Amino acid sequence: MSERIIELGADLRRAGTAAERGAGTSEREERTLARIALAWLTEPGTRSVCQLVEELGPVAALELLLDGGAPDRKLRATVAARVAGGDPRAVAAEAVRRTERLGARIVTPEDEEWPARLVDLHRLHLTEAQRRVDTETAPPLCFWVRGSWPLAEALDRSVAVVGARAATGYGTHVATELGYGLADRDWTVVSGGAFGIDAAAHRGALNAGGLTVAVLACGVDRPYPMGNAALFERIADTGLLVSEWAPGSDPLRPRFLIRNRVIAAGTVGTVVVEASARSGATQTAHRALAIDRPTMAVPGPVTSAMSVGAHELLRDHPKTRLVTGVAHVLEEVGRIGVDLAPPARGPDRPIDTLDDDAGSVLEAMPRRGTVGVERLAARAGVDVRTAMRKLSLLEELAMVVRRDDGYALARPLRPTADRPAGP
Amino acid sequence: MSERIIELGADLRRAGTAAERGAGTSEREERTLARIALAWLTEPGTRSVCQLVEELGPVAALELLLDGGAPDRKLRATVAARVAGGDPRAVAAEAVRRTERLGARIVTPEDEEWPARLVDLHRLHLTEAQRRVDTETAPPLCFWVRGSWPLAEALDRSVAVVGARAATGYGTHVATELGYGLADRDWTVVSGGAFGIDAAAHRGALNAGGLTVAVLACGVDRPYPMGNAALFERIADTGLLVSEWAPGSDPLRPRFLIRNRVIAAGTVGTVVVEASARSGATQTAHRALAIDRPTMAVPGPVTSAMSVGAHELLRDHPKTRLVTGVAHVLEEVGRIGVDLAPPARGPDRPIDTLDDDAGSVLEAMPRRGTVGVERLAARAGVDVRTAMRKLSLLEELAMVVRRDDGYALARPLRPTADRPAGP
Repeated sequence: MSERIIELGADLRRAGTAAERGAGTSEREERTLARIALAWLTEPGTRSVCQLVEELGPVAALELLLDGGAPDRKLRATVAARVAGGDPRAVAAEAVRRTERLGARIVTPEDEEWPARLVDLHRLHLTEAQRRVDTETAPPLCFWVRGSWPLAEALDRSVAVVGARAATGYGTHVATELGYGLADRDWTVVSGGAFGIDAAAHRGALNAGGLTVAVLACGVDRPYPMGNAALFERIADTGLLVSEWAPGSDPLRPRFLIRNRVIAAGTVGTVVVEASARSGATQTAHRALAIDRPTMAVPGPVTSAMSVGAHELLRDHPKTRLVTGVAHVLEEVGRIGVDLAPPARGPDRPIDTLDDDAGSVLEAMPRRGTVGVERLAARAGVDVRTAMRKLSLLEELAMVVRRDDGYALARPLRPTADRPAGP
Repeated sequence: MSERIIELGADLRRAGTAAERGAGTSEREERTLARIALAWLTEPGTRSVCQLVEELGPVAALELLLDGGAPDRKLRATVAARVAGGDPRAVAAEAVRRTERLGARIVTPEDEEWPARLVDLHRLHLTEAQRRVDTETAPPLCFWVRGSWPLAEALDRSVAVVGARAATGYGTHVATELGYGLADRDWTVVSGGAFGIDAAAHRGALNAGGLTVAVLACGVDRPYPMGNAALFERIADTGLLVSEWAPGSDPLRPRFLIRNRVIAAGTVGTVVVEASARSGATQTAHRALAIDRPTMAVPGPVTSAMSVGAHELLRDHPKTRLVTGVAHVLEEVGRIGVDLAPPARGPDRPIDTLDDDAGSVLEAMPRRGTVGVERLAARAGVDVRTAMRKLSLLEELAMVVRRDDGYALARPLRPTADRPAGP
């Protein structure tokens, strides 16, 4: 794992150096720079920009926009206003240098650690009432990431725990317990960076020694709110700080809404702990519902304004599930994992049909990250040749994948015994 | 209204006197005595007894049982054990005398004030797990009632508010608010007689000057628990104390479960405020669900053992509706009233097709109770002949019913404007 991160760092350094050189930049680096420039020019999440990038690629899409060829007048005006403030390519190159100085990295859809799940944002169609910002539905153009975990792996088994800034003692308690319980069962906690529920969920996960991801609405070098600065450092040390905005970017108000779609789409499911009526947390829940993610709400006293949002979700959106603790949450997100696995392969789960050696190899696979054949053979207690044969079989069954640096599970292994029992 | 109550009292006195005389008892009085004897012999709610009564009538059913002809061995044993303790007919006659001394009355399905809604108990089929007492599904044989309101009218617009004895301050507060809010909007509150949620709901209704009904699992002369004695007196003064057991009967444990079906079936809908897991209140909710009554639960802190039952209902029974206050409750029970009205009569509500005079007559009808034609004509501002013609029309439209002492609404009038708006 650590080797891979060093490699990614080296890639990034190369990209940075290349950007500085101006000439000789690789095509891939050009595309990354174009994505950064596009995000700066148009704000992340703009659907028309996303479509242009898909049709033309980021480099040509950027050129088109800079030539005044934006498909609608509003976007042309946005681009023109931004261009008046600086050269987008220079801004992008500076963002890359700043990212490197920070020890952060830029992740794009071309990278292996890009979370595939975000593709579901293409299905995110919000009603007029739900959509308060134009630019809040398309998948991100790129991420800035601080922290060692590959982003996709960190989010693979992840649950969003979101809620009110002005949380009550009750809500803070519940969010901390959920964060702890999820991390304790090897699930990543994902939230924003706000006071209240967000911070409580992160703290719970950190207390369990687990993985937690803060998705920010500003640069990953901007501790906002300042009072959570120490928390962000702890998260960056053992988890991830993630943002669609370049280092130094301000936490502008609309960015929180734009950011919310990433929390909803980047995770397996979303839990609202406390939320006032029509709050940011209920917005996140609406986005999760709109793309059919398990969406959950923790009830509270009906006398508490901080539970109105959760109760509204439970009343108005029948697909929202009432959860009272981590067991209920795992029941929802765990079920999806299990449901997704077998359908294409008939009634028998392939794992049941494996011979003993293949089963041993599969069980010896690390839950996250990759492993070399020799190491795997030793862990599985089989010889290397057997390990290679069984790995071919498992690859054919789409249970493991071969990567540059070894083999990895195609998806986290969730044997039946690992699933929490119903309440 | 008061005239009617005096008449009912006179009926009762006549029944009592007749029973004392032994001979010369009217057929109707015989049937009432037989029902009382059957309830004493077999406990209320026994389905096989209810079937015998429907097939043979109460008098022949009683004779059959006393002759050892009970359809199953268990019932024969129950009857034999009871008969060893006294003569059922003498017990019944004594119950009538005791009822009269109390100023209470006996209500049977032959009485106009019998709540028609209880017939739905024929559809109550509980699973083995839900049925903890054999005798808890059939409609009651008779009721003892203390208080002036005719039972059916009191229950016509009624909501059951049930919950834990060991309620928290939160639950007590919510139940009191619900009781007050329902009574304030002219809905009857129905509950048991326990401490905690039951008592809070009654107190809320009494504080609003509204109608509240306590359905007891012992005689209406038995203040159980003693600590609620003053509350029961207040309820008897302005509302109703109701029981399926004769005066003097003990509050035996199974009787609470038997009683719960009456709370569920006698009301338009049931709200669970606080309940521990598998409690009496959730039993009542299961009975309401089993006969398709609107069933509601008030959420609470997930950290409270007293909200586990409500949350379980909301999770495990999707038809249970989360409610946070009286507006949500009225939305559920109000909707049913409206839903039940139009279907048989096509897309137009008949009320929309009435001419002005018929509309005036309908609007002048009292919400509860009956009215004479002259009085109605005066209230509607039409002459008596017009009132009579329009009453015939309204009767034909099944909107009013003719009774011995005048005309009454077929069901409470709930014009659209009267329904509470959604939250």
